[in-house]
Amino acid sequence: MKFLRYGAVGAEKPGLLDSDGKIRDLSGHIPDLSGAALAPDALAKLAAIDVSTLPVVEGSPRLGACVAGTGKFICIGLNYSDHAAETGATVPPEPVIFMKATSAIVGPDDDVVIPRGSEKTDWEVELGFVIGKTAKYVSEADALDYVAGYCVSHDVSERAFQTERSGQWTKGKSCDTFGPIGPWLVTKDEVADPQNLSMWLKVNGETVQNGSSKTMVYGVAFLVSYLSQFMSLHPGDVISTGTPPGVGMGMKPPRYLKTGDVVELGIEGLGTQKQTFVADV
Amino acid sequence: MKFLRYGAVGAEKPGLLDSDGKIRDLSGHIPDLSGAALAPDALAKLAAIDVSTLPVVEGSPRLGACVAGTGKFICIGLNYSDHAAETGATVPPEPVIFMKATSAIVGPDDDVVIPRGSEKTDWEVELGFVIGKTAKYVSEADALDYVAGYCVSHDVSERAFQTERSGQWTKGKSCDTFGPIGPWLVTKDEVADPQNLSMWLKVNGETVQNGSSKTMVYGVAFLVSYLSQFMSLHPGDVISTGTPPGVGMGMKPPRYLKTGDVVELGIEGLGTQKQTFVADV
Repeated sequence: MKFLRYGAVGAEKPGLLDSDGKIRDLSGHIPDLSGAALAPDALAKLAAIDVSTLPVVEGSPRLGACVAGTGKFICIGLNYSDHAAETGATVPPEPVIFMKATSAIVGPDDDVVIPRGSEKTDWEVELGFVIGKTAKYVSEADALDYVAGYCVSHDVSERAFQTERSGQWTKGKSCDTFGPIGPWLVTKDEVADPQNLSMWLKVNGETVQNGSSKTMVYGVAFLVSYLSQFMSLHPGDVISTGTPPGVGMGMKPPRYLKTGDVVELGIEGLGTQKQTFVADV
Repeated sequence: MKFLRYGAVGAEKPGLLDSDGKIRDLSGHIPDLSGAALAPDALAKLAAIDVSTLPVVEGSPRLGACVAGTGKFICIGLNYSDHAAETGATVPPEPVIFMKATSAIVGPDDDVVIPRGSEKTDWEVELGFVIGKTAKYVSEADALDYVAGYCVSHDVSERAFQTERSGQWTKGKSCDTFGPIGPWLVTKDEVADPQNLSMWLKVNGETVQNGSSKTMVYGVAFLVSYLSQFMSLHPGDVISTGTPPGVGMGMKPPRYLKTGDVVELGIEGLGTQKQTFVADV
């Protein structure tokens, strides 16, 4: 299934995309697509619904982030060897993890606000996954049992805030609107191999990232197991797994986003996002 | 006022501490002490209640974290010059910020679980403050308008996870139970000067930290303003402002917590915490 949330900011309703590409309303079945709706038994109930009985949503409503009530938004750094190289870093001996503020989460096509004082706002297409069942000390073999599904995640990053403003990356990762998630939460049964998905990102129509999750260093199953050694992962938590090469800071000279730039990105089978970057006036 | 939350894990009710030191139940007035209850007008309504009309809670119930529904748990690193020195670091030119997972939050006297594989679990008494009103690009002069109150925060830290396991501190800060908060959320009208509060921490009865928030480098008002340049702070967000000297990693030789250790800590006017450290079996 391809779950989504549609409607105005703060008033999103749960829905799904049917096989004709129409949005169907799920609000008669669940209050929202938060953690409770993503548990294996809850997903099984949703899968049993006859989609043709769900009301069709007319028009083209705004899409919100594809999951609600996210408690943790965890990111993996330098998780593609060629991206690490372009940033002047090497692949670490174990995953680098950091947090994005959950208050950064927005819909897939919402405007992204370049924060005041920013000169180095950069892009990063990433494969995201969403936890469906509380995970603690789980093995890599069992890890995918704890994943509800996958989504496109845009880990928007302000490089000066991230690396030139007194240590720790959070500062450059957590700005409001820096976390577009969606358009869909695609349940894992529809993703044959999360480690073999093409992914791309364009700036003003020009392709700048064109990679595949097959070159990810630490894969989804490993990451679930690894993270769960440090902390419980809860239903609705989002993990963004790092970006392939082609970010602005890796270009010679570096290239950053400015007001009016349009960024489009997508991952095979998971849909696309399109954001206009705007000034924070 | 001194707000608190009491009752079993996940079923806490809101309450307050009256002038006789008795817990009074607030659940007839608010559903919980989450962000919505902390807005200035909401706090004014609570302040107008005749405390003698509130039911007395008998016995000594468990206390939960003094705020519910925290969206962000932000910490400031190396914010006391003498603590920076003991860790071999220098005070940074602007605040170091990092996130603790909100899933680490527990009550002030709950057991703290030493994670599997930990050999360097350490203590840090910190002054916490809680946001009452959404803050974005606020000035230092206006900053305290956005603060609902103060609390004791124990920023429990696993030093090997934090610094020896591939960069970024989150990993050593976010373990389950590593964020005791409370006992009380003390409204700011009861805290004459947040930059002049004595603070202490004992391990098995021995005083190891004995400082004051007056030696904090970046104070509360500055931090609200500073953080709000990077991201919106929302009601219920908790900011932990860094620790004075005396942590285990600064001792010669370093000293870390082990199963059965009891840590007590407190801040002038904000109450005390007491945790037993237990193994994760």
